[in-house]
Order: sequence, then C-alpha cells, then structure tokens
Amino acid sequence: MSVTPADPGLAPDIDPAWLPDEALRAVGSRRVRVDGEGPLADTVRAEAAYACERFGGRIVGPGDRPDLLLRLADDSLGGEGGEGGEGGGSGGNGEDCPRHPEGFTLHRTLDRTTVTASAAAPAGLLHGYFHVVRLGEAAFTPAPAATHRPALTPRMLDHWDNVDVHPVMGQVERGYAGGSLFWRDGRPRDEPHRIRAYARLLASCGIDALAVNNVNVHATEARLLTDRLDDVAAIADLLRPYGIRTHLSVSCAAPVLLGGQATADPLDPHVRAWWRETADRVYARIPDFGGFVVKADSEGQPGPFAYGRSHADGANLLADALAPHGGIVHWRAFVYDHRQDWRDRTTDRARAAHDHFAPLDGEFRPNAILQVKHGPIDFQTREPVSPVIGAMPRTRIAVELQATQEYTGQQWHVCALAPMWSQVLRFRPHGEDGPGVAGVAAGDGGGRGGGGGLVAVSNAGADPFWTGHPLAQFNLYAFGRLAWQPDADPASLLDEWIELTFTPNRTADPDRLRAGLRHVVGGSWETYEKYTAPLGVGFMVQPGHHYGPSVDGYEYSPWGTYHFADRDGVGVDRSRATGTGYAAQYGKPWSDTYETPDTCPDELLLFFHHVPYGHVLRSGKTVIQHIYDTHFEGVTEAEAARALWASLKDLVSPARHARVTERYEEQVRCAREWRDQVNSYFLRKSGVPDRHGRRIH
Amino acid sequence: MSVTPADPGLAPDIDPAWLPDEALRAVGSRRVRVDGEGPLADTVRAEAAYACERFGGRIVGPGDRPDLLLRLADDSLGGEGGEGGEGGGSGGNGEDCPRHPEGFTLHRTLDRTTVTASAAAPAGLLHGYFHVVRLGEAAFTPAPAATHRPALTPRMLDHWDNVDVHPVMGQVERGYAGGSLFWRDGRPRDEPHRIRAYARLLASCGIDALAVNNVNVHATEARLLTDRLDDVAAIADLLRPYGIRTHLSVSCAAPVLLGGQATADPLDPHVRAWWRETADRVYARIPDFGGFVVKADSEGQPGPFAYGRSHADGANLLADALAPHGGIVHWRAFVYDHRQDWRDRTTDRARAAHDHFAPLDGEFRPNAILQVKHGPIDFQTREPVSPVIGAMPRTRIAVELQATQEYTGQQWHVCALAPMWSQVLRFRPHGEDGPGVAGVAAGDGGGRGGGGGLVAVSNAGADPFWTGHPLAQFNLYAFGRLAWQPDADPASLLDEWIELTFTPNRTADPDRLRAGLRHVVGGSWETYEKYTAPLGVGFMVQPGHHYGPSVDGYEYSPWGTYHFADRDGVGVDRSRATGTGYAAQYGKPWSDTYETPDTCPDELLLFFHHVPYGHVLRSGKTVIQHIYDTHFEGVTEAEAARALWASLKDLVSPARHARVTERYEEQVRCAREWRDQVNSYFLRKSGVPDRHGRRIH
Repeated sequence: MSVTPADPGLAPDIDPAWLPDEALRAVGSRRVRVDGEGPLADTVRAEAAYACERFGGRIVGPGDRPDLLLRLADDSLGGEGGEGGEGGGSGGNGEDCPRHPEGFTLHRTLDRTTVTASAAAPAGLLHGYFHVVRLGEAAFTPAPAATHRPALTPRMLDHWDNVDVHPVMGQVERGYAGGSLFWRDGRPRDEPHRIRAYARLLASCGIDALAVNNVNVHATEARLLTDRLDDVAAIADLLRPYGIRTHLSVSCAAPVLLGGQATADPLDPHVRAWWRETADRVYARIPDFGGFVVKADSEGQPGPFAYGRSHADGANLLADALAPHGGIVHWRAFVYDHRQDWRDRTTDRARAAHDHFAPLDGEFRPNAILQVKHGPIDFQTREPVSPVIGAMPRTRIAVELQATQEYTGQQWHVCALAPMWSQVLRFRPHGEDGPGVAGVAAGDGGGRGGGGGLVAVSNAGADPFWTGHPLAQFNLYAFGRLAWQPDADPASLLDEWIELTFTPNRTADPDRLRAGLRHVVGGSWETYEKYTAPLGVGFMVQPGHHYGPSVDGYEYSPWGTYHFADRDGVGVDRSRATGTGYAAQYGKPWSDTYETPDTCPDELLLFFHHVPYGHVLRSGKTVIQHIYDTHFEGVTEAEAARALWASLKDLVSPARHARVTERYEEQVRCAREWRDQVNSYFLRKSGVPDRHGRRIH
Repeated sequence: MSVTPADPGLAPDIDPAWLPDEALRAVGSRRVRVDGEGPLADTVRAEAAYACERFGGRIVGPGDRPDLLLRLADDSLGGEGGEGGEGGGSGGNGEDCPRHPEGFTLHRTLDRTTVTASAAAPAGLLHGYFHVVRLGEAAFTPAPAATHRPALTPRMLDHWDNVDVHPVMGQVERGYAGGSLFWRDGRPRDEPHRIRAYARLLASCGIDALAVNNVNVHATEARLLTDRLDDVAAIADLLRPYGIRTHLSVSCAAPVLLGGQATADPLDPHVRAWWRETADRVYARIPDFGGFVVKADSEGQPGPFAYGRSHADGANLLADALAPHGGIVHWRAFVYDHRQDWRDRTTDRARAAHDHFAPLDGEFRPNAILQVKHGPIDFQTREPVSPVIGAMPRTRIAVELQATQEYTGQQWHVCALAPMWSQVLRFRPHGEDGPGVAGVAAGDGGGRGGGGGLVAVSNAGADPFWTGHPLAQFNLYAFGRLAWQPDADPASLLDEWIELTFTPNRTADPDRLRAGLRHVVGGSWETYEKYTAPLGVGFMVQPGHHYGPSVDGYEYSPWGTYHFADRDGVGVDRSRATGTGYAAQYGKPWSDTYETPDTCPDELLLFFHHVPYGHVLRSGKTVIQHIYDTHFEGVTEAEAARALWASLKDLVSPARHARVTERYEEQVRCAREWRDQVNSYFLRKSGVPDRHGRRIH
C-alpha cells in the first residue's frame, strides 16, 4: 500500500524536541494499518508512513495482518460504555471504542496479535497514534485493554504574540524563545513548515486549541478579526491537520475601533449585531474556528466597565455571537486595579478576581468560559490556588497556567513547572469531599454544564530549540499531558519526556542519562523557589521585565504586589481577623487553614501573614534563618545541577548540550545575585546574623 | 539708512523665552548706529533694525547722532588696558575697547549723550548689543564706563541629540523638551528658522559654542564626521551669524567604523593620518569648526584602553588633527566601571575620574581640554565638587554642568540650578588662597596655558517652550550668563531673566509678579533637594529613566551608586581612615574637612560618611528626623509654590501659565511620592518614629 509519508517539516537546525525520528522506532519498525477516512486519518496515515520509511516497517492494506491497527469505528460513537479513561483512573473495560470524540481504546492483550487503537472519531485516531508513539516498545507488550480520553477540553495554548513589534513588549509579550512562530514585524512569519511541525508536537502531547495572538490586543492585532482574517485562516489551515482549533484574542473595543460604531456597549443592539456579523464572517472563512479570548478591563484593555456593564454582559455578548457556530469565548478573570496606591493597605490585589467575578456566578452563557489564573496574583513561583476556582459552581471555569517562564527564570533557568501544576490541579477548594481544581475545569459538580478546560501561555517561539532553554520543552510537553490527564504523576511525565526526547537507550549509558536528567529537571522548581522570593511572598523581581532580583522593586509601586518588610518582620496579612480578608474568600477548610500562622502551610506563610523574623517554622527554623538557608541551598543546588549537566556531555547532542550549558552559566550567576541581594536585604533590615556565619554582603 | 530687520524666525506658537519683542523696547525706541562690517556686524544691525521697527526708533547713519552707538574699533584689539571685566569685578577703567575678541566697553557716562559700546572684534559687538538689551532702560542712564569680557571660553552647550531615534534613549538622550531641534528620525529636522532663533537666544545670554550630537555616538551619528558632514555644515551656517561655533561628538572607533582602518590605536601612524585627513576635510567644509567632543572608554563607548593607550594618547591624537585649524578637543573625564559588583565596598565610582586622569596631568596637548563633570558621580542634586578639577594644574579643564534635568525633575519639576552652579564655580579646591573652580576653567594658576571653559548639557529641544517646563528656560539662560561671569549673583540673574521674559512693567502688578517668580523659581533647588535623596547621598531614583523615587533602585546594581542603608544607619564611608579613601583625593583643607562627620558639611554628610540614624546634625536634629522633616517640608513648599503660581494667572500669558500649572500638578504628585517612599523606607528600616507624629505609611 502506498502512502505519502508526513514530512516533519523541520530544517536540520531545528530541534526535534520530543519527536526525534528515534522516538518513532517502535511504530516505524512494524506493519501498520490505518482504517478511516478524512483529513485527520490522512495525517495519521502519513505519520505512520514516515515512521515506517525511517525504520523499515510498512503501511499495510486490508489484506495484511498489521502489528498496529488504528481504526475509526464511528458506529460506536453513540454506544455505551467507555467510563474508564485516565482522568478517573486508567483501567479499561474492554469495550471497543470510547464515546469521546478525542478518545480511543487500546487493545494489546495477549490473545490478540495485533495492537489495536479504536477511536470513535478521527481526532481519537490521532491521539491514539501518538499514545502508541509515547509508549514505544511497551505498546507492543501485553496489557489490559484501556480506554483513554481527555479529562479536560479544550487543552489550549495562548500565544501572547504580537503582530507588530510592540515598543516595550516586543514581538512576543513575555516571550523568551526568539520571536513568534506566527508573526514577524507586522506580517505573517511565512514559515508554514515550522507551524506545521509545531502543531505536530502539540498534538502529540494532547493539545487541541491555540490562540494566535496576545490577550493585550493592540491596533494591528485587533484587525486580525476583520480585514486581516486571512492571516488567521492561513494559520488555522496549518493547525487543522493536527486536530488543533484556532482561537483569536479580540478587543472589546472592536466595534468602535474596527466597526465604526459609536459605542462598544455590550447591551447596545448595534454592537450585538456587529459582533454577530463579524463572527459569521469569521466562521465563513474558518468553519472550525474555536472562539475568542478576551482580556477586558484589565491593565488598560477596554471592557464593559466603561458602559456600566458587568463582565457577564461583556462575555455573553461575544458568547451569543459565537453560539450559532459552536464557538466559545474565554473571558479572563485577571481583573484588578493596576494603579493601586501602595500606601493603602486595605486594598488587596489578591482579592480582586473573586470580588469581581464570584457575584456573577450563574450569569454566564453556556459557551462563555471564565479563564482564571491558577493563583490570585500572577504566576508567581508559589501562590495559593485562586479562590475563584472554587467559588463559581454555576460557571464554566478554565484554569490558566503560564508555561512561558515570566517569573520563573525566563527560560534561562531550569524550572520544571509540572510539579507546581500538578499541585494546583489536585487542590480541592472545598476539602476532600469536593471536586479538585481539575474536576472544576472538567465541569464536575455544580450546575455549570461543562468544564472550561486548561489553558497555558505558550513558552514556544521561533528559537531553534522552540523554547529557548531546551529543558523548558518539558514544560510545554507536561502541560499538554496534564491537560489530558490531570492526575498524571509529574515524575512519570518527566520520564516519558526523557525517553522521547533523549532516547536514552540509544546512548552509551542510558541509566546515567536518565538519572542525570531526572535530577536536573525534576527538582528544579524547588531549587528556583529556594533562591528567589521566600515563603510565598512573591515578586521581588526587577520591575518591567521581571527577570532577576529587586527586593523592593515593586514595594512602592502601583501594582499591588508588596511584601511589607520592615526591621521587625515581613509578609502580607491577608487574614480575616486582622488583614485584608482575602483568606475568607476560600471555602472551608481553607479559609480556616490560611487564617492563622499556626495552620497556614509554611510555603505560603508570607503570602497570608506578616510575621516577625523570629517566627519559628515547622522546620524549627526561624523565618530569617530559613531565608538565609534556602538562599544558600538554592545556589548550591543550581551549581550542582550545572555540574551534573556538564557530566552528561557524552550522552547529549552537542548543540543541545552547548545551549543548556550556556543557560546554566547564566542561571548560576543570576541565582547568586538572588541569594546575595535577598540575604543582604534581610540582614540589613533585620540585623539578625546568619547562625552559620556565612558571608552576607 | 535702510537696513533689513532680523526676523526672529519664530512661528506664533513658539515661546519667545527671554527675547520677547517687549524686551527690545528700550533699544527699539531709540536711534541706533552700528559701525562695523562683516557678518556679525550685519547681524547686530539687523537685530537693531528689527527692534526699531517694532518700537519706533530707527537706524541712523554717520551723519546723525545716535542714542546708541555700537562700534567696531578693531585698531584697539592689540592695545593695552582692559583689565576690568566682570570675571574680576565689574569696574571699568575707561579705555575705549577691550582686547578680548568677545569683549566690549560700555560708555554711558553723564558727559556723553550717546551710549557707546565699543568692541575690538565683531563678536564683541554682538555681545555688547545683547548686553544693552538686557539692561533695557538702565542702559541709557548714567553709569561708570565698564569693560565686559567673558571670564570663560568656550561657553558651550552639548546636545545629547541622536540623529536616529535610539531604541532606548530616543531622539534626545536625557531630553525632556520634545525632540531635537536638529534631528528627526534619522534626518535633519529641517526647521532652519527654529535653529536660527535658538542661536539668537543662546548668543543673547553669552553662549558661543555648541556640539550638535550626543556624546554616545551611535552608528548613524558617527557618520556626521564624514559622509554626513553636510548636515553639520548646514547647522553651522545657521549658528554662525550669532557667533556660535559648531562642535561634533565623535567616536574613537571612527577610523575602523568609517575609515576602513584595521585599528583605532591612537599611536598608529595610519590612524593619525586618517584623523588628520578627516579633520582637514571637516575644516574645508566648515572653516570655523570648533572641534570634537569625546566620551571614551565610558559606559560602552570605545576608547584608547582597547589598545593599551592612555586617555592622553587618545585626546592628543585628536588634538593634533585639529591643531592646524585652531580646533580643540573636549575629552570627557567621565570614565568609571559601570559594571561594578555592588558587593565590593572597596570600589568607589566617585574615585574613578581622579584615579584615571590625575596621573596624566601635563600630558595633554594645549588644544586638548579635559571636560570634567562638576561632581564625582553624575549630576546629582547635591554632590561635592569633583576633586579632578583641583588636581591637574597643567591641564586645561572644562567644567561640565547639566542643564537638562536628568536627576532634578526632568523639567516637570521647577529646579533652578543657578544657585548650585554658582556654589560649584565659587568652590576653591585648594582653600581660600587658590583659584576657584571658575578660575581653573578660566586657566588661572598652574601651567595649563589656558582654560577649558564651561559646558552644559542642553535642556532645549523642539518643544514650543524650548525646555518643556517654561521656568526651565532660566537654567539655559543662567548657564550662559554664569559662563560669561561666574561670580554673578544667581538672584540677580533671576531678576534679569524675569525682567526679560515676563516684562513685569507691562503688567498690571509688576511687584507681585516679580515677587511671585522670585519665590517659585528662586528656592526651587532647595525644595527639590528636600523631598528627594537626603544629605548628599544621591540617586534613590527609578532605574533607567531616573525619574521619581526608588530608594533601593540602584542599591544592588552594577552602577556604583549606593547608599548602604541598614537598620542602624545610612551613607557611604568615603573617608581615608575607614572608607574608600575618596576624601583624600582632595587637597587641603577639603581632604581634612570631608574626612570626619564632625567637620563634613551636613548637606554632604551621607556622601562622605555612614552614620547612625541618631547622628546629630548641626541643626540639632538627628539624621532620621532630618529626613522626615525635610521630606514633609519639601512637599509643603512645592504645594505652596503651586498655589503661588496659580495666583499669578492674571499676570502671565495664558499658554505659559497653563503649561506651568500642568507641570506643577505632576511635581506635587511626584514630590508626595518621594516624601512617602523615602519616609516609609526609613521608618521601616530604622523603626524610629517621627517625633511630630505625622503619618508615615
């Protein structure tokens, strides 16, 4: 049987990330059949053909017995069964095919000589194929049949990419990966192979939606919705073969900016008509368009407040325009006063999203999703889970993560975020008896009628390694995998990624390579936390670009991000009893847990409480000694990771090794800067000497 | 007699600054004769004609008795006498004409019915004319004959203007006056009338030299020296009629960048030949070209260090190229390590210029001028006088001031700098018996064979008010006047400027206007100092743009600008005994005076010493109470100035009043921010309460 192999579409100098050809060996050395029609089935067939071409297998037709059969069984889409799935445990029940359009069932029991992935819809074929790729040889060993389907939908990447280079924020806002994959200097980047290869990587880890432009919608970007819609359609054409729907960030002021309307009032009939007609035109051009992403009344973006309307009014306006076409609006809950007076200790930015949105629960349309940052502030290294997530049972909630490392080392530092994300997704806002964050995003409980899925701000760009730091590829991969299966073990995902990306078995010392990578990546978040802002207090970064330390950098700013350190103590009192009352925004038991320093977890102590430097932590250390110790430890760990990486030189490709080595030099330099600035700052302020007498400047 | 009047060349929306037509009334209502030939005499004649056309006077010929005679008596240039002059007191000796080519003698004694200004050279005619304008009616009242000549030459403005818009620094580095008068978006601005009007303003206050581009010479700007020389010549043609010579900032790397040389080594014969040929070409195009300005081995600019050569080698290279044409090089002494480690308390940026340059005394060519910033750091609100100025008796020294208010409110705050500059110019580096700073710049004492003059970084730009803040015009005016007469009383200069600019006698209440302006401008430097960094410690500004407070903004930076505040005290120990040794760079008595807190002037205490918050100042207040008190006072004074300005609305032109009113709103807002951040910072750190119980956040 003759099939055109998929060309991965990469120039030789572009890193293959977790899809090097070597990762296709198990599939590619076998006889593969793909039963099904349509574009996605064609994609799978071409992928398999490419693998087989590389490793001696072949695509077989109906007459031959395949080793691997990927089959579309669309008659079973309406059937019963299929309650397994990884979101709720990975046990299967043997049915041939799941109901979820992206799901599939994998049969590899002893009594079958053909491993079979059955899907009810073409997207399930695609995810089934990449599941087999991830399993590698293990896919062809006996195991109970298992049905897999995504726990969360959509699994979406937001690209904060600008079309025009922004005078302050550049081509990609908070981008640390060498420019945009989609745009350059005001025009499409015009590298379709690169976008296609990106779509392939995303699909292979489970991502199925992508917003192509920054949530801060500037003048040029606003026009993507109308006269530059062709630019969006061109991207959608490249993402579609990998099952990824295209979304667009839009401006609430679009009716005025683009439509010549006198107002953008969500309740104005002309405005409503304009949005409906505009959405109609979008769908006429991009029939599978995903929907809109909106940042409104936030950090200078326009929104419904200008017209005395609520955020529900604003979101519903767009939801109604999208509804006839099956589109959704992701309406961001990141609304706060960014011109706060630092002198006013009663205003608390952490409270803002809950204050604004919780009262609106139940007012949003079924296709309006409230997109909530995982923490109440802004993607800090350590934050509590946003109380909004547990407070709106009648609203579809999407949880927003940040893969781009704005506050976590900007892809110069290794900081694997899967452990943090896993903690967030497992957090149970109402205690052990209620749904977890992942459950909320899945639509469990309450009357919300569906989940909002998981979203991450992408960390990928035109950099040859996609993410600047090659080890930051794991953050992109882990996001997709956790969105599919939120209860996945981060350590297992790391192993999975290591096997795919570094194919240790093809090296001289697989165990040393695996152990080394587990070490340098696995604990990197804790290491990063140690040498940066202590005990959940956050920020302490340099203003504007947010890289490197500045303990007081935001202390007297209008941004609402303070630590209130004085000569006696440090931290923000967010208790109900004596503070801002933020702790009371949580349901039980968390409102009680966070209320007092006695019960508040140490790692969040300074987020919730202002304590004396002599306050004793559960570790038995004082806060000030904890600050000193963790900052010395963090640098030691970063130095050790650098040395360990150096020792892997014989096992890693030269280009990748060199890039990571370069980044470690900067990480260690910057970690020392963090250590010394934070320690000096607190020694100068507290006057308490380090009990170990180490040098503090 | 028919003469073409000078057109001031201003569009109606451009502020006339200190040369409104009204300021010409005294001259313009009289009969005026100008005896002399050549372009400068023609300028004077045209100026007088313009004044007469406005106010009913007339230009008369040799047959008529004039009320004012401006005469060129070139036969007396070689004569004796003329030892008076304002630099050494304003008494005259009755001789007809001074020897200095810019000097003049004014006769307005009772026995002469014609007031006569006699000059030895055309430039003296020009300065004599504007002297009469400044005097107004007083010029026509009896007074002893007096000879006037500039104490300092050149009296130069450095424009930190970029040709291309710099991605960080913009069109004008540290410019707060609406773009460049000379350049726009990579090309000449092409507003010759504006440049001509600017030249007229400068000449009228005594300025005679101007550098047309930034001392940080970027790629495009470097080419002004060679293939874009025509752009410079066009400016020179506009400045020349007002007696102003044009200078150019050049890059030490020019032989490589522009000349295709393999090296820029100052001792390389090809490099020397290239500079000579390049200078020849410049003078062929601009015969009265002034010379070069150079920032070398400083903040990233190239310089002789790259070749193991000294700054004398670098300066002499250019001096030799210019010498055949009478040109001079201004070589800046602003050389320091801007990548310093903040942990290293032994390195002291304040020491750098002296460490680098004092050993080179005597090694510079006669036409090489060392241009020294007035303080050792960088134009702070309060600094000691640079020890370099008193340390190089065999070197021509120019003192560099900063009219553009980089650290003094960026022309949003009123901050009249004449009192500060006057203090600097009167400072005597070797005590009462040695020359003052002005004397050094004039060439007094030592074997330097000439002075280097006075330089200011210009605060003027394309703004309709020239300087952004209309009251900042006084800084430009006062610079020119102090350069001519360094011992002028700043208060008298302010009165002079008020009379010219606001012509109080033409208003309904001259005395109220004068008193109001004296108040809001006169004490503004002290007010600004009160609410910003205390007791000479400097900085505490926001990094990068330098506007507004950030107490720790530069504390952990590589820029060498620290205050070392901890819970016990604040300040930099620069003593010889226990500190960086900077105090020992001064001659006696200052090295002793600055050495101990007991003798160090309070206003410089924290520049020289780290003292406890409880240290008692001469005022009887502790340092911490002084910080609180001055910050409360500074804001109160700013608020009072704002109110006083508001009360002058009926006496000031609407446009000017509105602009200043707008600026006062921002000044008061920013002053409160300074007060609150500084006070909060030190309360949090010291724990010492305000003894008056005022609110500190």
